[in-house]
Amino acid sequence: MDATRNNEQTITGSAHGYIKARDKELLQNRLKRIEGQVRGVQRMVDEEAYCVDVLTQIASVVSALEKVGTILLKDHVEHCVRESIENGEDADEKIEELTAAVERFLRV
Amino acid sequence: MDATRNNEQTITGSAHGYIKARDKELLQNRLKRIEGQVRGVQRMVDEEAYCVDVLTQIASVVSALEKVGTILLKDHVEHCVRESIENGEDADEKIEELTAAVERFLRV
Amino acid sequence: MDATRNNEQTITGSAHGYIKARDKELLQNRLKRIEGQVRGVQRMVDEEAYCVDVLTQIASVVSALEKVGTILLKDHVEHCVRESIENGEDADEKIEELTAAVERFLRV
Amino acid sequence: MDATRNNEQTITGSAHGYIKARDKELLQNRLKRIEGQVRGVQRMVDEEAYCVDVLTQIASVVSALEKVGTILLKDHVEHCVRESIENGEDADEKIEELTAAVERFLRV
Repeated sequence: MDATRNNEQTITGSAHGYIKARDKELLQNRLKRIEGQVRGVQRMVDEEAYCVDVLTQIASVVSALEKVGTILLKDHVEHCVRESIENGEDADEKIEELTAAVERFLRV
Repeated sequence: MDATRNNEQTITGSAHGYIKARDKELLQNRLKRIEGQVRGVQRMVDEEAYCVDVLTQIASVVSALEKVGTILLKDHVEHCVRESIENGEDADEKIEELTAAVERFLRV
Repeated sequence: MDATRNNEQTITGSAHGYIKARDKELLQNRLKRIEGQVRGVQRMVDEEAYCVDVLTQIASVVSALEKVGTILLKDHVEHCVRESIENGEDADEKIEELTAAVERFLRV
Repeated sequence: MDATRNNEQTITGSAHGYIKARDKELLQNRLKRIEGQVRGVQRMVDEEAYCVDVLTQIASVVSALEKVGTILLKDHVEHCVRESIENGEDADEKIEELTAAVERFLRV
């Protein structure tokens, strides 16, 4: 599986590379923190913390994930969508994809 | 910090213990899977996977977390809220807390 | 259809009557305002207002509706769920219904 | 106030006019239906319908509004954002505005 991963990295790395270097680090930091929060929730469940406190923590992880989502969304519009419009290539498809992604977030 | 944790466990463990044993395992399994999904998102960002795919994955983690939230909510109503109503103790406070938790989820 | 409505009113009015008189007025005021906001959105679309402003207005109507939802939810727990627990009647069913309603809101 | 509205219409009508004619009718139909649904909720509250049914109806209005939101969002990207990128004018500002609008929807 690791070999596949490396392959993918090579392919997708060159094919996309749209996430801003600055955002990549920001996103990784946020995702690390989110991973830690999820483990914190596991610990709370394990220790039978008060249910309302666990719910509050979960709501906070959801917010953090959606924040990551909007950063990615912005990078996506700034790079993929923008480029496809500038090059006059697949712009309709990219815009369709973008709104579909937002719909998946809103679950409409 | 670990000492504190152990203390908390003792206290909260005996004070609450309201998560059904069956749900506890179910919740831990789901939370483990969510943790894996978050790490998967980190990998996708690292490998510069296609942004829309990362967004789809994030939307799926959000759904999984909200599902965990509703399982906890149900356990909470079935135990804490129910007991407080049956014992005529703090029922108003528990109900207030419950709706506040739902509001935090809906962010209203 | 109006005849049916009147019938329903008689039946449901006596069967439920669980919305607090105070909340009923509050809810109607909020719903009236929401109706006005929806008409405002129609006007904005009609007059081709700036799309982002229309989106902001829609997001605000969604928040207002979810706020109404949580008021109803609280009344529901305070009355139906509480009564069914106190009377030891259909409590499980009521709690099941409650979490299903929350899930519909979160769309999980 | 009506005079103002007419003024606004003239100004914004010529300034924007970005909603597709086809979508404008579609949006108005959806918004009319949403207005009817909100009045339906008012009637349900008035007639003290079963709370869970009212909540279900509200959840359905929220979905319908978010659907309208995504149609507007798509029109916005297809017109305003696209044009600003094509003309190389205010593209950054438009993209910033777009993600801010999505964030308001997700309330992150």
